[in-house]
Amino acid sequence: MKQSMLAAVYCGEGKIELQTRPVPVLQHPRDAIVRVTRSTICTSDLHIRNGAVPRAVPGVILGHEFVGEVVAVGEKIHSFQPGDRVAANCETFCGTCWYCRHGFVNNCEQGGWELGCRIDGCQAEYVRVPFADMGLTAIPDSVSDENALFLGDILSSGYWAAQLCEIHPGDRVAVIGAGPVGLCAAECAKLLGAETVILMDLDPFRLSLAREHKLADVILNPAVEPAEEAVLSCCHGRGADSVIEAAGGEGTFELAWKLARPNGIVALAAMYEKPQLLPLPQMYGKNLTFKTGGVDACKCSELMQYLREGKIRTDFLITHRGPLCNILEGYRIFEHKLGHCIKWVVTG
Amino acid sequence: MKQSMLAAVYCGEGKIELQTRPVPVLQHPRDAIVRVTRSTICTSDLHIRNGAVPRAVPGVILGHEFVGEVVAVGEKIHSFQPGDRVAANCETFCGTCWYCRHGFVNNCEQGGWELGCRIDGCQAEYVRVPFADMGLTAIPDSVSDENALFLGDILSSGYWAAQLCEIHPGDRVAVIGAGPVGLCAAECAKLLGAETVILMDLDPFRLSLAREHKLADVILNPAVEPAEEAVLSCCHGRGADSVIEAAGGEGTFELAWKLARPNGIVALAAMYEKPQLLPLPQMYGKNLTFKTGGVDACKCSELMQYLREGKIRTDFLITHRGPLCNILEGYRIFEHKLGHCIKWVVTG
Amino acid sequence: MKQSMLAAVYCGEGKIELQTRPVPVLQHPRDAIVRVTRSTICTSDLHIRNGAVPRAVPGVILGHEFVGEVVAVGEKIHSFQPGDRVAANCETFCGTCWYCRHGFVNNCEQGGWELGCRIDGCQAEYVRVPFADMGLTAIPDSVSDENALFLGDILSSGYWAAQLCEIHPGDRVAVIGAGPVGLCAAECAKLLGAETVILMDLDPFRLSLAREHKLADVILNPAVEPAEEAVLSCCHGRGADSVIEAAGGEGTFELAWKLARPNGIVALAAMYEKPQLLPLPQMYGKNLTFKTGGVDACKCSELMQYLREGKIRTDFLITHRGPLCNILEGYRIFEHKLGHCIKWVVTG
Amino acid sequence: MKQSMLAAVYCGEGKIELQTRPVPVLQHPRDAIVRVTRSTICTSDLHIRNGAVPRAVPGVILGHEFVGEVVAVGEKIHSFQPGDRVAANCETFCGTCWYCRHGFVNNCEQGGWELGCRIDGCQAEYVRVPFADMGLTAIPDSVSDENALFLGDILSSGYWAAQLCEIHPGDRVAVIGAGPVGLCAAECAKLLGAETVILMDLDPFRLSLAREHKLADVILNPAVEPAEEAVLSCCHGRGADSVIEAAGGEGTFELAWKLARPNGIVALAAMYEKPQLLPLPQMYGKNLTFKTGGVDACKCSELMQYLREGKIRTDFLITHRGPLCNILEGYRIFEHKLGHCIKWVVTG
Repeated sequence: MKQSMLAAVYCGEGKIELQTRPVPVLQHPRDAIVRVTRSTICTSDLHIRNGAVPRAVPGVILGHEFVGEVVAVGEKIHSFQPGDRVAANCETFCGTCWYCRHGFVNNCEQGGWELGCRIDGCQAEYVRVPFADMGLTAIPDSVSDENALFLGDILSSGYWAAQLCEIHPGDRVAVIGAGPVGLCAAECAKLLGAETVILMDLDPFRLSLAREHKLADVILNPAVEPAEEAVLSCCHGRGADSVIEAAGGEGTFELAWKLARPNGIVALAAMYEKPQLLPLPQMYGKNLTFKTGGVDACKCSELMQYLREGKIRTDFLITHRGPLCNILEGYRIFEHKLGHCIKWVVTG
Repeated sequence: MKQSMLAAVYCGEGKIELQTRPVPVLQHPRDAIVRVTRSTICTSDLHIRNGAVPRAVPGVILGHEFVGEVVAVGEKIHSFQPGDRVAANCETFCGTCWYCRHGFVNNCEQGGWELGCRIDGCQAEYVRVPFADMGLTAIPDSVSDENALFLGDILSSGYWAAQLCEIHPGDRVAVIGAGPVGLCAAECAKLLGAETVILMDLDPFRLSLAREHKLADVILNPAVEPAEEAVLSCCHGRGADSVIEAAGGEGTFELAWKLARPNGIVALAAMYEKPQLLPLPQMYGKNLTFKTGGVDACKCSELMQYLREGKIRTDFLITHRGPLCNILEGYRIFEHKLGHCIKWVVTG
Repeated sequence: MKQSMLAAVYCGEGKIELQTRPVPVLQHPRDAIVRVTRSTICTSDLHIRNGAVPRAVPGVILGHEFVGEVVAVGEKIHSFQPGDRVAANCETFCGTCWYCRHGFVNNCEQGGWELGCRIDGCQAEYVRVPFADMGLTAIPDSVSDENALFLGDILSSGYWAAQLCEIHPGDRVAVIGAGPVGLCAAECAKLLGAETVILMDLDPFRLSLAREHKLADVILNPAVEPAEEAVLSCCHGRGADSVIEAAGGEGTFELAWKLARPNGIVALAAMYEKPQLLPLPQMYGKNLTFKTGGVDACKCSELMQYLREGKIRTDFLITHRGPLCNILEGYRIFEHKLGHCIKWVVTG
Repeated sequence: MKQSMLAAVYCGEGKIELQTRPVPVLQHPRDAIVRVTRSTICTSDLHIRNGAVPRAVPGVILGHEFVGEVVAVGEKIHSFQPGDRVAANCETFCGTCWYCRHGFVNNCEQGGWELGCRIDGCQAEYVRVPFADMGLTAIPDSVSDENALFLGDILSSGYWAAQLCEIHPGDRVAVIGAGPVGLCAAECAKLLGAETVILMDLDPFRLSLAREHKLADVILNPAVEPAEEAVLSCCHGRGADSVIEAAGGEGTFELAWKLARPNGIVALAAMYEKPQLLPLPQMYGKNLTFKTGGVDACKCSELMQYLREGKIRTDFLITHRGPLCNILEGYRIFEHKLGHCIKWVVTG
């Protein structure tokens, strides 16, 4: 194994740099070291760069969504061995604390969002994964690396958002935003039994992608047709039983609660850079439930099963690829959606 | 039966007046006419007067919480007859529309909060109750009028707030505000299985009342001891499993979400006159659920049973009484909490 | 309106006769009188004739599944008026007792299975329906009488059985018996989100009907291929997540619990004429849940909506039709499944 | 560490013998070896001896309920180290298979009831515990060995039985049998929010023990007062909302479903040596749910917390103690309830 490697590092003050770093080594008996075969750039990486994630530590290697090959395991690891193909969970969690036992792994007493935020992440050639028995999922032979790549972050987030909706048979679910999380949320809402999924975005390319892959039943552009009326008309005149806000844009928070029917659920799956206004007097009597927060990514084995059975697909999210040495260009393309970029994937 | 009666009328522009009005008559086969024996003044009446309830109609007789005696029933009423003692529901609902069938009676297609808001209410000698089979509850002989008085509004609201908390055995529930709804919510949270109920208010009199009637396990004054630390210390260091915000005061919305543990529930039972700020970036990762709205008062027969069995009491809320002709003075006392007023009750 | 009518009467001792009876009249303010346009013969009618329903009263007019036209309403009826097209609920329930408020309408303190069992039923020209506001459902214009005919009994039973299964996304549900209830249960299990429905019966005609109407994903004949192995192989090797026993035949109770996976649910929707053996030592550790009983038919408005939207169909159950004067011949055909009879419908 | 030890061995054909056996050693990296400080005799041991547990392997050391001190751990064990005081789970489970992930640990693909049944158990000086990170629970300093002793079997079973009851606030729960599981079930039903727990047994000593320790609200002897009437009279005339059958005696299965109200739950927590008759025609319309099986003992950390906080106590179950060399005498005393024996505890 080599001694040093290339890595994309958050340097604070809005800066990301490519640096040479030592290859990570095992630090704890429950660690594993993984050679990264595919990794991604995520909107959260931009939030870190923009200073919107106070817990992020300058100097950290970025990246928290990847697949790879196990190259070393700590002595307490029992589920994996070197050579195993694995997908990683964006969250680090011990599996035994009160939060973990309740499925609230995002609040694990020893974990949460660590990789690429507080400890070195995966925009590098190698990465150290703590609590690797919990944080890695074996990739079956029939699933390609690129098909498994989004398991632990984007797909988990979409699934989590859909689960927040407590979907009942017959439900109509509106999804605001056809970005990576929104597209996965639409797919997962369908998987969880939604009768009608209504997906909306301002970007015609993303809408056409959703149309091509049949990711929703109704696909609309609020710039072209009024979203509220469109949703009402396909939701019994009452509004959506639940709304997934996966855009986090100007006015989308307000749109979300307006689209929901009385007593509906609004799942705020977007990551906001600003506080939002909750106009309680105006919405009084609408009796809405708002669910906030970040993914509790603890359903990875279930989701891997869905990927294996072909019930969910995510590979269409990959619009761009490039080697690690080009990642700063990748950041530029991803941030500005150049060439309709949805996901820029690091190929190793 | 007499032809005219005294009534407290909302005149718009911040004004309430005592007027003489015709005694109401049956207008629909599902109506009942009730002679009011006890009624109350509610904070919502003040919200109406202050213009914070846009749906309120100037000219309407105020009041939506009362008990009385049925004096006439429409031909389609099958549960009641003249002479029956009844408690009224603050909400009017048909019982058969989609919302009613789902328990969302506050959004009934033909109802919602009507009495004392859009149709004449109970701060009068007589009141017409639409859909009376749904909107009235028989008072058993062993329950006094004053014990049943709060059934359809304050008690229903406290119960609704406690139900929003989805209480599990072992749960710790914090209640902000020891006003009428907060006190009932504390009682109901206990009834629904909360292990520890923590009640807080700035008013020492209300706290001592709660102490005297053993309405909570921990009773504290945030002006004297820091609420966040106190709650943490009796909630496993994690925070409250759920928080009922029943104050609607300065800073109480923020306090509410701070008191909740990660993945907890914040039930916003207060009626706010202003929008609130939801600082999503600051609370990111705390994964809170916010429940908003107004009571779905459809559990009245259940609650009457609890009153009958003595499992819940509400009569200690009555601190002041007076005849209808003194109600404007009652409003003044209630609004400014003169003489530690909690509830000013109209004695007929 | 005429004074007398034809009716099929249970005479005790295994006998059913056609008799002339007076046309029923309103007896209570919550009654309605309905002119029957379509009614059915049900297996329960045979159970009554066979003496297996001790609560059945000799002398009663049989029949509890019908549609018709309202001809008279009691003075307390508010949802219907003469001329309305309605489907009837097989159960009579008050809507206000403890059982009704919990949805256990089969145990209504003033009802339960009354029609065609304890009070005169619908195998006649007219029928009196108590608590008609609860027991009738309006038929929308776009739904034909024959499409609505099974709403209140067979379809309600299939839906109830499917609901007993507590279906989660991804679930595999096995249905034993492709008779009327089994076929509806299969449809409803799919509607409620089952991923795979496995339907089995010994009768090739019924299986081919199920195949033709795509009522299940896997359709098998246990006489031809071993059911246990077939179910295991399409249920992850674990067994079915839930099993609906809708046959009530020789050995089907045992088959049911054998098909279920550990910790699965066995919904016993069949009506048994004999006690069954629960071999607890043999099934120890399998941790099964058995749900027993008869339909709580309180979802009729929901089901009518599904019929209206075409999400459920039941008209293919009608294999035979005939006038009321031929009903005894109909009983013979239905009982012995002559001409592959599934349902013999009385055309008025 | 010594090389050989004393052990109670199931020899097949109704025989248990004291034998000298080698001290167990680690066989797998996820094993631990525990020195037993307290262990028990359980009714299941008698079932094994009687040949009623086909999966039990002759030659196996009996016993599956114990506390002790860890003396060696496999290299993959991360939660324990030599010297730790621990309580053991009666079930062995991997924690990662489909069943474990759903909480159905009794059906773990690599486990289930293994200890003292298929692999050597704890009626010995030392015992090997597979998957020890899952199968052991640390005992806090403030909890004595004898207080923790029943955690993994009897207490887990009582808690599991109470959880099967899906208790809602206000529920009345009847418990048949005041043996070890019945007593724990009564305590746990209360803990989970039952309003009234009705405990019954034929043994006056056990009833007086229950009375002394306030383990139930109503305590009755069916030999003295008719159980059905007594239960009806304290259950609103409807019957118990749920019934825990923890006796497994003559007629107790039938008593169980008779005590339940319509639509109630019957939790069959007893281990039966014979099949039971399910008289479906007789109970038709009662719509009961029967839950069968053996404990899924996966709530040990929760239960240890309750023990630590004093919310549950189990030490009163210990009526007799003796050294391992006297265990055959212990079996005799336990089986015939000599000296009112409830639990005969091996003191090391």
